[in-house]
Amino acid sequence: MHAPDLQTVKVDLADRSYSIVIRRSLFDNPLSYADLPRARRALIVTNTTVGPLYAERLQKALSSKYERVHILELPDGEKYKTWQHMNLIFDALLENGCDRQTVLFALGGGVVGDMTGFAAASFMRGVPFVQVPTTLLAQVDSSVGGKTAINHPLGKNMIGAFYQPIKVICDLNTLQTLPDLQLQAGLAEVIKYGAIADNDFLAWLETNLSALLARDPSALTYMVRRSCEIKAWVVAQDERESGVRAILNFGHTFAHAIEAGLGYGQWLHGQAVGCGMVMAAHLSCQLGLADAFFVNRLTLLIQKAGLPTKAPILSQADNAGRYLTLMRMDKKCTDGEINFVVIDKPGRAGIHCAPDTLVRRVISTSCTAPATLPQVDPP
Amino acid sequence: MHAPDLQTVKVDLADRSYSIVIRRSLFDNPLSYADLPRARRALIVTNTTVGPLYAERLQKALSSKYERVHILELPDGEKYKTWQHMNLIFDALLENGCDRQTVLFALGGGVVGDMTGFAAASFMRGVPFVQVPTTLLAQVDSSVGGKTAINHPLGKNMIGAFYQPIKVICDLNTLQTLPDLQLQAGLAEVIKYGAIADNDFLAWLETNLSALLARDPSALTYMVRRSCEIKAWVVAQDERESGVRAILNFGHTFAHAIEAGLGYGQWLHGQAVGCGMVMAAHLSCQLGLADAFFVNRLTLLIQKAGLPTKAPILSQADNAGRYLTLMRMDKKCTDGEINFVVIDKPGRAGIHCAPDTLVRRVISTSCTAPATLPQVDPP
Repeated sequence: MHAPDLQTVKVDLADRSYSIVIRRSLFDNPLSYADLPRARRALIVTNTTVGPLYAERLQKALSSKYERVHILELPDGEKYKTWQHMNLIFDALLENGCDRQTVLFALGGGVVGDMTGFAAASFMRGVPFVQVPTTLLAQVDSSVGGKTAINHPLGKNMIGAFYQPIKVICDLNTLQTLPDLQLQAGLAEVIKYGAIADNDFLAWLETNLSALLARDPSALTYMVRRSCEIKAWVVAQDERESGVRAILNFGHTFAHAIEAGLGYGQWLHGQAVGCGMVMAAHLSCQLGLADAFFVNRLTLLIQKAGLPTKAPILSQADNAGRYLTLMRMDKKCTDGEINFVVIDKPGRAGIHCAPDTLVRRVISTSCTAPATLPQVDPP
Repeated sequence: MHAPDLQTVKVDLADRSYSIVIRRSLFDNPLSYADLPRARRALIVTNTTVGPLYAERLQKALSSKYERVHILELPDGEKYKTWQHMNLIFDALLENGCDRQTVLFALGGGVVGDMTGFAAASFMRGVPFVQVPTTLLAQVDSSVGGKTAINHPLGKNMIGAFYQPIKVICDLNTLQTLPDLQLQAGLAEVIKYGAIADNDFLAWLETNLSALLARDPSALTYMVRRSCEIKAWVVAQDERESGVRAILNFGHTFAHAIEAGLGYGQWLHGQAVGCGMVMAAHLSCQLGLADAFFVNRLTLLIQKAGLPTKAPILSQADNAGRYLTLMRMDKKCTDGEINFVVIDKPGRAGIHCAPDTLVRRVISTSCTAPATLPQVDPP
């Protein structure tokens, strides 16, 4: 079932097309960058966690291509995904005499990728950038598809751009040293791809979850490739999320409420998405779409991945009301109408509205669901 | 020679195409906005100078189309073209519950247009916006073509996006109350269009300059339309300035050095462009392209428009060296090579490099040129 070691997935977006290369021992190999456009300067943007591990090795790999390779380390964490910190990227670019040819490299997880991408989109109205994701979440989700953003005090990812990288370098070795929590958080998005687009992949995940958690290289390779293929396939159809791309938000509407309600950083994004998918599956069932068997199957997989399946209480007074209020503040809402991504059947998703009463019922059930769910044999 | 009162110029950019409507009594007429997409909310961004004159009238015109029309007044001036002030637009949008459908209206000059455009490009990764330019410079130049930006402490317009408006409303009545200096500053860009792209238009400007300075409505109409046509024609060929669009920077390389060297705001942008075009014409002549007759002809027109033709001294020690240093910091430079826009012959421009010695000679001549130039009979 596992594919060979070298993997390339193409994101097909006309003149904005690019390759995602998925392989071990990739990011510090100069050959990985041989096809990039020539320039005098490059800037590696990373954070204080990833930088000490990998920045110098990337700098060395790039030094045969670029005369000067600068490194900028940002503080690590979602709370630094602000204008003030993105401005440090502009400072570094201008202080070092960078120009419109300068290539930016985002070395790190989702926060580094989102900020570097938006900085690349905006610096001199657009310079090329390369994603070098070092977390599972970034490799299978945030580094692919061109969504870049920073946060505003009144909302997450409120300010940004659709701006595609010119290449994505997924070095699977970086997953070997990733903390367990980060691996689990990434698995939430991987499970999402199975649920919304590929029932066979969902079944493969059920079979191979132990191997994945044990970081079996072949299993990781296949998982990252299949996830990137599904994301690339969706993005190629709808780059700017005017239609089908919205299905990638499965679980994310509830997750948004959890993250905003608890305060960003309390739960990892992937944890909130795991729990949010359980809630969205329940809603799908309540709407007469997916059946209870699927809900249990998905819940079990999420639970086995080490992710929460029971939703947190956000308000003692009116918990469901608080969830609804927060979900209505999501930028995916239009005119206060919440567009839920639901599962029509395993491997196929759609967008539905739902009456508040139904949503309230799902929230109540999810917040009081037993921590241990009834065991269901995987198919 | 004058065209009829109602004028529409199409900017042809595939799915990003839009119309520039040029007419009197336009901005406060609800019909001007009839073809815009429906939305619940709109936000008018203006400044403390233009807002009191026009914002309520625009709000009234829009109120039949949108349930809520908010107004945000920013302080007036280039020095407020910063992230901090653009963030006030995001605050207003989020505090008022605006969403991805909300339409932004930029009511004012170039600063308001550039900031509102970049805010529209970035808010929720892109919402529609309409340019309602109220200065000549904004009507003939900055509101057309999708260049949006804010300044960085280390450089002007360093952070921004190519993002097209969905419509441009040029109400010619707003030019009647424009201060003389602002009218003259706008004329610099108008003269530029003649010099780089249309020798007949240049001749028309020579003939009609007095009527334009007297704000003859028919003359203004033709001037704005022809300018927008030329800009739209150039932008349609090269939206992201990878080639021919660079000719729109005629005079701007020298102007950039003047503005940066004197400190932004000392000279109006249009004044610096006027003087910069004289310098670029001299350089064209030194390079054996345009002849001395053209240089004198252009200089005279710029002078008659009330614009400076003699360049300021930026350094007592090494004036030409200071100009060169500043020009090399322009974002249009790559690898320290200055790309000058030169006039090949009247109405046709090209891009050339030039040896420093030649550029130094032009700067020396321009900084010591007599304030009154030898009279040349217009052709």
